[in-house]
Amino acid sequence: MTTPRTIVIKIGGGEGIDLEPALNEIASLVRDGARVVLVHGGSHETNIVSEQLGHPPAFITSPSGHTSRRTNRKTLEIFEMVYCGKINKSVVERLHQLGVDAVGLSGIDGGLWRGARKDAIRAVEDGRTVIIRDDLTGRVEHVDGVFLNMLLDHARTPVLCPPALSADNEAINVDADRAAAITASALGADELLLLSNVPGVLRDPSDPSSLIATAGASDEVVRAAAKGRMKNKVLAAEEAITGGVGRVVIASANADTPIASARTGAGTVFEGAPA
Amino acid sequence: MTTPRTIVIKIGGGEGIDLEPALNEIASLVRDGARVVLVHGGSHETNIVSEQLGHPPAFITSPSGHTSRRTNRKTLEIFEMVYCGKINKSVVERLHQLGVDAVGLSGIDGGLWRGARKDAIRAVEDGRTVIIRDDLTGRVEHVDGVFLNMLLDHARTPVLCPPALSADNEAINVDADRAAAITASALGADELLLLSNVPGVLRDPSDPSSLIATAGASDEVVRAAAKGRMKNKVLAAEEAITGGVGRVVIASANADTPIASARTGAGTVFEGAPA
Repeated sequence: MTTPRTIVIKIGGGEGIDLEPALNEIASLVRDGARVVLVHGGSHETNIVSEQLGHPPAFITSPSGHTSRRTNRKTLEIFEMVYCGKINKSVVERLHQLGVDAVGLSGIDGGLWRGARKDAIRAVEDGRTVIIRDDLTGRVEHVDGVFLNMLLDHARTPVLCPPALSADNEAINVDADRAAAITASALGADELLLLSNVPGVLRDPSDPSSLIATAGASDEVVRAAAKGRMKNKVLAAEEAITGGVGRVVIASANADTPIASARTGAGTVFEGAPA
Repeated sequence: MTTPRTIVIKIGGGEGIDLEPALNEIASLVRDGARVVLVHGGSHETNIVSEQLGHPPAFITSPSGHTSRRTNRKTLEIFEMVYCGKINKSVVERLHQLGVDAVGLSGIDGGLWRGARKDAIRAVEDGRTVIIRDDLTGRVEHVDGVFLNMLLDHARTPVLCPPALSADNEAINVDADRAAAITASALGADELLLLSNVPGVLRDPSDPSSLIATAGASDEVVRAAAKGRMKNKVLAAEEAITGGVGRVVIASANADTPIASARTGAGTVFEGAPA
């Protein structure tokens, strides 16, 4: 008897991503005995609903050029409606239809994802650097693996999404790629797949054929190539490998079989040192 | 050593209900060792968000005069955004701030609440009785008490809301009072409290002093007095008592200490036959 594989799969919430192929593959993995944790995004849908509710999305650009969602209390409320309500529950419902006993949870439920809130964020506005102090964002630093394993041991498939819970028990927006990475580490996962609108780390973001096929745990070529949102994915991949995850693949969610494709290496593959 | 009490508390989502006093009382009950399950509503907030999103709420009136929300796919999506997203997560966050390790779940998560979808609903429209076949509503018939007890045994406090999951694994809107009642039965709860905008069953709905203080398990006076939404609460109370719950109180959520008030009998009290 072999130990069942533990696979953490993050699927981004970018425009045009269809979850259906991946959900079918997850059902098949679970049927075959894999322990799967799904982490989902929802940024595009959040932008749409924010506009509809008269609270257009706003973004912060850091001095290093990284962009993130400006999250005040009203933003967080809409964020929770879309991530924890609309998307999470539609994924859970669909997985049940595919025979998977899915349980949808946000990072605040049971304090599953805990981390510090950033008390000051440096942002560039009109060429000036300003300090923002009321942003409800942070980073996941601790995952309740005991709780997740309890669910997995009872044949439940966790479907997770932000927000997380701060040390002061405030809901905070967190990067879901890095949350998936630390979740994979906490579970000692064999694999982490980061699926989104891009095929992997590209040397030239405008040229899909410039894909970097393999990366080390701290690979300067990959780091230099990663721009914008991809920086976080590379950071997440490195953190997962450092945290003991066997293999990380940054790959496209837009394929007939995105999970099988990623697992067979169609993307940028990070591999840990052999045990 | 005494067995900890199990208390299921339903708080309605009517206009003007402030959850804060009840959440503080729940924190105190949990600290004192009680096993608490909270079920919440969200109808008023759902009406507001539905209007904001350009999908005004619609209601169905049955031939017997009972009113329920017309639930098509779009309604259900907004319903999930408000119940499972906005309200559930704000309650979970607040309970964590009060020291309670709350876990928010809808009835579809883990198939916690299962029941049949109504395949045909009789409704009165412009004086005519019509049959509606695409409504996504039903009634909870089975509760996964094993899953809830697993959470309670690990010192987690479940915070539950509709929708439930149909036999065909579709999300369905269900009455949360009756869902709370069958949940209380499944857990063998000592108490079920149904808190809302009304002080209890009134002989005359316009006269708060006409409160019926005590009711039997199938009490014709109470049944006759219950009009509109109160019919469901009385049905829920009767179902809980029949299901073995020790005591049910229909009481007001609008009090300084709504839970303590209900528990000391300020409302309509239903009591089961002594064991």
